[in-house]
Amino acid sequence: MKARVHVMLKTGVLDPQGEAVRHALGALGFEGVNGVRQGKVIELDLAEGATEDQVKDMCEKLLANTVIESYSVELV
Amino acid sequence: MKARVHVMLKTGVLDPQGEAVRHALGALGFEGVNGVRQGKVIELDLAEGATEDQVKDMCEKLLANTVIESYSVELV
Repeated sequence: MKARVHVMLKTGVLDPQGEAVRHALGALGFEGVNGVRQGKVIELDLAEGATEDQVKDMCEKLLANTVIESYSVELV
Repeated sequence: MKARVHVMLKTGVLDPQGEAVRHALGALGFEGVNGVRQGKVIELDLAEGATEDQVKDMCEKLLANTVIESYSVELV
């Protein structure tokens, strides 16, 4: 089974990477880009029987820095 | 309106970051993690009326390196 984890910086936390992308898009002539946030997506290939709770545990312990990042888990 | 872009390394392209995560999960005692791939997720806040084609154009020109990365666009 597979799980997909999204890790994004929490709202209010400065995202210089996203800001750089926004600026570069403007420089390339793309208009109307009001904001960009960049995060990580982690695709896990798990043994059968793994639960969402186990994946959340992985997020808490390794995949996300919960002080500044929020995560969401999706089993696919 | 918002768009979400996923950028992942293509299958077959070595993903050292994902491999490091897989190794670290094993070291933390999580068993049954057969593979990990790490990519980027970019959330764009766009002016009304932006189309999926415009976002794909952004991907081709800036957001993804299409030689080694694939992308998918989702309007939300």
